[in-house]
Amino acid sequence: MPGIGPRSAERIALWIVQARGDQPQEIARAITVTRQAIHPCALCGYFTTEEICEICQDPSRAADQLCVVEQPTDILPLEKTSAFRGRYHSLGGKISPLDHVGPEDLRIKELLDRIEKEKFSEIIFALAADVEGEATTNYLVDLLKGKPVTLTRIARGLPAGGGLESADELTLYQALTGRTKL
Amino acid sequence: MPGIGPRSAERIALWIVQARGDQPQEIARAITVTRQAIHPCALCGYFTTEEICEICQDPSRAADQLCVVEQPTDILPLEKTSAFRGRYHSLGGKISPLDHVGPEDLRIKELLDRIEKEKFSEIIFALAADVEGEATTNYLVDLLKGKPVTLTRIARGLPAGGGLESADELTLYQALTGRTKL
Repeated sequence: MPGIGPRSAERIALWIVQARGDQPQEIARAITVTRQAIHPCALCGYFTTEEICEICQDPSRAADQLCVVEQPTDILPLEKTSAFRGRYHSLGGKISPLDHVGPEDLRIKELLDRIEKEKFSEIIFALAADVEGEATTNYLVDLLKGKPVTLTRIARGLPAGGGLESADELTLYQALTGRTKL
Repeated sequence: MPGIGPRSAERIALWIVQARGDQPQEIARAITVTRQAIHPCALCGYFTTEEICEICQDPSRAADQLCVVEQPTDILPLEKTSAFRGRYHSLGGKISPLDHVGPEDLRIKELLDRIEKEKFSEIIFALAADVEGEATTNYLVDLLKGKPVTLTRIARGLPAGGGLESADELTLYQALTGRTKL
């Protein structure tokens, strides 16, 4: 389990063996139930107990904006910002030849199907600002070129609270070239 | 001296006392010469040995773009990116009531004088993405409202190489709201 080293593991193992109540059994049951009940949303790939997740079902959300992310876990921090009230699509990863992940391993076909059917007016690429994230964004932009939809990407620049002296060269370059009108 | 703790200081002190050559004396001379020779540029506030610094004198640089920074030391990292080939203006700090730094303590009068004289077409605010940097930018934007000059600010968003999971809420919010067209 993440965050549990050999010493913690030993402590937990001994507790499982010696605990008076049936708490260990309850935890085992909770894990089993969670594994059975929660699966990826058929549309966006987010976690859900139903066929379609809460976000995809929510009629109050904009149906014409789609935010493309790498992992379903990226949806949580984006939701916390409340800056986006449209739909999501998780690719399940990013193109990374070194890890043997190609476009065919990602949920790109599902993305193209949704774009055909759901008629989005804007697609926002919210992938990581690293080499693989860039490559994946560029690959998808090439695929979607010519379609009647606005393609945008989240801004790169100075992170909140950061001074110029703590920013690396590439971040400063992107902050300068991507400057915005006031 | 920055980066020199008690142990290093002791080692250096003993070396100054015991060194065979006259290296310690040469270092003392270099420090004195540097202190005498280098002073702030009369225009931008950057380091120079003359009245006006190399950047302000360089005729190959765009004379109609001005980049406003907090400290003269912020000019170095910006120069390294090669993304900007105009002039600079260092304010000498940022508005920070908690540290008793008000607008009158900054080189704002000098900035207004330059804007009157040098007829810039664009002024880029490259201040820190923290509260004081924001406040200073907003103060200057208010001052310059109505002047025939484009005001821009460097982008805020995901730093280079950063994934969504490592970005804080405010950075993600700014990355989403500041998204750019592809």
